[in-house]
Amino acid sequence: MKQAKVRLYVEHALGTGQSVPLERGQAHYLFGVMRMAVGDPVLLFNGQDGEWRCIVAQAGKRGGVLVCEEQTKPLQMPPDLWLLFAPIKKARTDFIVEKAAEMGAARILPVQTDFTNSERIRQDRLQAHAVEAAEQCGGTFVPEVADLQKLDRLLADWPQDRQLMFCDEAEVGSAKRLGDATGDKWAILIGPEGGFSEVERKRLTAHPNAHIVALGPRILRADTAAVAAMTLWQQALGDWV
Amino acid sequence: MKQAKVRLYVEHALGTGQSVPLERGQAHYLFGVMRMAVGDPVLLFNGQDGEWRCIVAQAGKRGGVLVCEEQTKPLQMPPDLWLLFAPIKKARTDFIVEKAAEMGAARILPVQTDFTNSERIRQDRLQAHAVEAAEQCGGTFVPEVADLQKLDRLLADWPQDRQLMFCDEAEVGSAKRLGDATGDKWAILIGPEGGFSEVERKRLTAHPNAHIVALGPRILRADTAAVAAMTLWQQALGDWV
Repeated sequence: MKQAKVRLYVEHALGTGQSVPLERGQAHYLFGVMRMAVGDPVLLFNGQDGEWRCIVAQAGKRGGVLVCEEQTKPLQMPPDLWLLFAPIKKARTDFIVEKAAEMGAARILPVQTDFTNSERIRQDRLQAHAVEAAEQCGGTFVPEVADLQKLDRLLADWPQDRQLMFCDEAEVGSAKRLGDATGDKWAILIGPEGGFSEVERKRLTAHPNAHIVALGPRILRADTAAVAAMTLWQQALGDWV
Repeated sequence: MKQAKVRLYVEHALGTGQSVPLERGQAHYLFGVMRMAVGDPVLLFNGQDGEWRCIVAQAGKRGGVLVCEEQTKPLQMPPDLWLLFAPIKKARTDFIVEKAAEMGAARILPVQTDFTNSERIRQDRLQAHAVEAAEQCGGTFVPEVADLQKLDRLLADWPQDRQLMFCDEAEVGSAKRLGDATGDKWAILIGPEGGFSEVERKRLTAHPNAHIVALGPRILRADTAAVAAMTLWQQALGDWV
């Protein structure tokens, strides 16, 4: 059986014998860039029906049709982990979203903090990065990227049953390991490069669901801190067994 | 006392009263870009004498002189951890070097594997990235970036007293946690995006010093895997207490 070389996310139902029309960009990629033809296999997933081996049934410059052959992976939901981060420079923001999808975050929430410069984000572009990362990392789920929201408003409405892990150089003294923590709904908050403001810090440390976790003696950039924090969480409480 | 806003690496001895001449690029950065003037403070480190608060004594377009005032941090050596990785696309290779320096690797070794495309690297450019990361992360040490070398030759001469942690999706079944591992000399090997070859895999798994560690159920890009692996190591055996 021919090995599928391409893995794509589609917004279409997948199931045995199901036809899946391709949009123009994907058709261009499969048939123009990757030179695929009728009969070639492609892996598809849609975030709901798992991963399917599909076969090219029609190939054109502006579109095409794939037909689902068999399921190759069931839907695997990541743990219920949110990643909250303050958007920074474009390239690093893109990286954080990509890393969050690879590391298995279920939701990605850009937040505005007192020291965040960003007034707005391109949600559609960040969502596309999450899709691309899911295609690449072999996951069957794509985390949703939320719109930018203010951290203080988010904390004011914080769900009672969701734990909040955050990493703050100024609070290393009170930092703990995650070993004893419990709960299956979590969020990780990565601060902006300028750190949290005093008001934010007080509010966060006083929060009943807060867990302060240290990330070593060096100052990490926000994208490094995001991967490191998700690693600690996944190993202690997530799906890294 | 005025807060130093800039932190620079220099290749010059540092000590009380010591004058430190600046090279052209650094003079341009301090006086042209950052608009600093005589009397302004700058933090300097050289990888050997810790971090020093210095004062601008002469400022010119093509050079300048700083004078060391007081030591602000002693030299803090990272643990004896090497990071071995197979160079990939330029931007991601740069990121791996930056992340290795931030995460506290002592040496960074680019390696050629059977599935590595790179025939050569720009060692000087990668070393400059490590310096920049050290300037940014507050460390007083700069890891050395070695020249590209072949993985099989490196393994043939492998030091008997150095443990080798590697992460391989194909070997997840035999993966362990680092909890029980010991030793104070370690290396982490991050495979190329195409994985290891069969020959390499056999050689690595048979190596007496090898420790296979799993990085979760999703496939991580090499730069993500590097940060995740260093996080696990630092928490189990390194300086993240």
